[in-house]
Amino acid sequence: MRHALLAAATLALTLPASAQEAPEGAPSPNQIVDAASAEEWVVIPPEDLLVMTLAPDAEGNEREVVIQLMPAPFSQGWVSNIKTLARAKWYDGITVNRVQDNYVVQWGDPGHDNPESGETETKPLPEGLKVMGEDEYFTWVSDQQIPWMWSVTGRIASRSAGTPPGFQINPTAVPRFSDPYTSAVSYSGSFPVGLWFGGDGPASFGSLPAKAWPVHCYGMVGVGRSYSPDTGSGAELYTVIGHAPRHLDRNIALVGRIVHGMEHLSSLPRGSGALGFYTEEEADKRTPILSIRVAADLSEEEQPQFEYLSTESESFVAYTEARANRRDPFFIVPAGGADICNIPVPIREVVPE
Amino acid sequence: MRHALLAAATLALTLPASAQEAPEGAPSPNQIVDAASAEEWVVIPPEDLLVMTLAPDAEGNEREVVIQLMPAPFSQGWVSNIKTLARAKWYDGITVNRVQDNYVVQWGDPGHDNPESGETETKPLPEGLKVMGEDEYFTWVSDQQIPWMWSVTGRIASRSAGTPPGFQINPTAVPRFSDPYTSAVSYSGSFPVGLWFGGDGPASFGSLPAKAWPVHCYGMVGVGRSYSPDTGSGAELYTVIGHAPRHLDRNIALVGRIVHGMEHLSSLPRGSGALGFYTEEEADKRTPILSIRVAADLSEEEQPQFEYLSTESESFVAYTEARANRRDPFFIVPAGGADICNIPVPIREVVPE
Repeated sequence: MRHALLAAATLALTLPASAQEAPEGAPSPNQIVDAASAEEWVVIPPEDLLVMTLAPDAEGNEREVVIQLMPAPFSQGWVSNIKTLARAKWYDGITVNRVQDNYVVQWGDPGHDNPESGETETKPLPEGLKVMGEDEYFTWVSDQQIPWMWSVTGRIASRSAGTPPGFQINPTAVPRFSDPYTSAVSYSGSFPVGLWFGGDGPASFGSLPAKAWPVHCYGMVGVGRSYSPDTGSGAELYTVIGHAPRHLDRNIALVGRIVHGMEHLSSLPRGSGALGFYTEEEADKRTPILSIRVAADLSEEEQPQFEYLSTESESFVAYTEARANRRDPFFIVPAGGADICNIPVPIREVVPE
Repeated sequence: MRHALLAAATLALTLPASAQEAPEGAPSPNQIVDAASAEEWVVIPPEDLLVMTLAPDAEGNEREVVIQLMPAPFSQGWVSNIKTLARAKWYDGITVNRVQDNYVVQWGDPGHDNPESGETETKPLPEGLKVMGEDEYFTWVSDQQIPWMWSVTGRIASRSAGTPPGFQINPTAVPRFSDPYTSAVSYSGSFPVGLWFGGDGPASFGSLPAKAWPVHCYGMVGVGRSYSPDTGSGAELYTVIGHAPRHLDRNIALVGRIVHGMEHLSSLPRGSGALGFYTEEEADKRTPILSIRVAADLSEEEQPQFEYLSTESESFVAYTEARANRRDPFFIVPAGGADICNIPVPIREVVPE
């Protein structure tokens, strides 16, 4: 025990709050999350969870990844396609084909050679897949769907209860949550979103139309595509394993996030081909995907259960403030702000009693 | 050849610009970098490069990591310590002890048991290491050291040549490079920095004092420390392997960045202990570091050579604009802005002719 503590103290960047050496300080973001009440957590429906089973690793350890699919109002056509593909067992036997450092891990059908034609062929897709338009990379939202946001001026704006639709700027809020990519950022359910005001939509955000879209943070899952106007079917998926590539927002569909087992993807060997694809010579590095299943289709014992801290809860707002202004013992200078991808929504597995 | 092209087209998130299927479009950021003139590149002195040799991987492949140490005016006490440690060969035989997903990889002395005392001991540090103060996490800078910046209003400001010190806001510049963590961001040499105006320093930025400090982007290298007032010696180092943990800025010393071999660190297996430390049970996952050497101390044939695209060059400004407003063929909506960690300074190896 002494050994473990000494090692932690010697090596630490940040120490667990329980370490005996810790001086007093404000609660850390994790401590705020741990203290949240049971009512502040929201269970993710099993219909919104995918269980992706990779082949065991070189030491024979099982590798399971759980993906939370995005609920309405975002990307529902692609999400529907992904469930169709999972239920057709189309994903079974595909591989991880691309691992580009500080960018993405991508999985799909690597193709197979047809010896007669000499061409590379991919396996046929199931019937009934939807073809989505580029205008579905975003959604028109109303202010009733967004409880609060960081506006372009970097102040927290909140929906004023009981009054006509419209957001009130809070002049006393921390003035440094501005976003370099768009007008405002917020959360919709458990997902981070960008917002843009104006355009041709219905004026449902006060007197303005407002577009919203999910943003590319670490661990988000998206749909690979070819050049415009292709929007991808959902057969080809990727997840972000580096700094948020926010330039992809509104250019490609996001459909969910990894909620468990991210390390099985992020620690895969990088591909040496262009864009991090594994070359033919290193085809043995392609990790096989044994199956992808909708959790709702599994037996009750097999179903993983996850819940997220409601982004409308008091604990989430306190967590947000603590992420932006670290005052727990390790820190000496609070930043005064943060970017939305550095404030991940807390998600935890529900362990049955 | 047909095979490779088809696979790329099928799987692509983004395709190489040379792919035959690519529609016409503006040059990509990489194409702008490739077209930069030889004069726009700056060679990194071998005295500023560290060569870190890891033990070969499980397949016997060599693993070499190259670190660019930060030049003046930042963190020079810690940089000096690191060279002292490297030249004393103190680092030889230490290990990677912590791999925390979406955060850091950290290496240092794992300690060894002393059977007589029953205590864990670490190896003695060499003589002559400096003890740095917390006020050295930042530096007072003058406007002569900063060629341009993105100000708090999100507009590019430039030094006005020939006039008294002071920055001119460019009212026609893209208005969306605001930073949620501080007043302004820029580059100093090849490193990204945050800026803050005011305080007790000399008024050397127009009429205001200005602090600057390096920021925590992907691949940056910093100095592990214990609780304040400890500032770390340089014996314990880490690099960022996830989304930029900018809350660490000004709370811990940054001393450089990985310029080669990042994948050897970012793809290591994650530790299952608290904070991603490897537990005693998984001590065999600690990657041994065979040696760390200052490149200037190596023979000429062994010296790696790297250069960076000058952040004061026209090509860099064009690259920056293209990163913030992707108009190359894959993209349909340019963002209009970007965060500084999504605009990495281009660095390339110089291959001798």
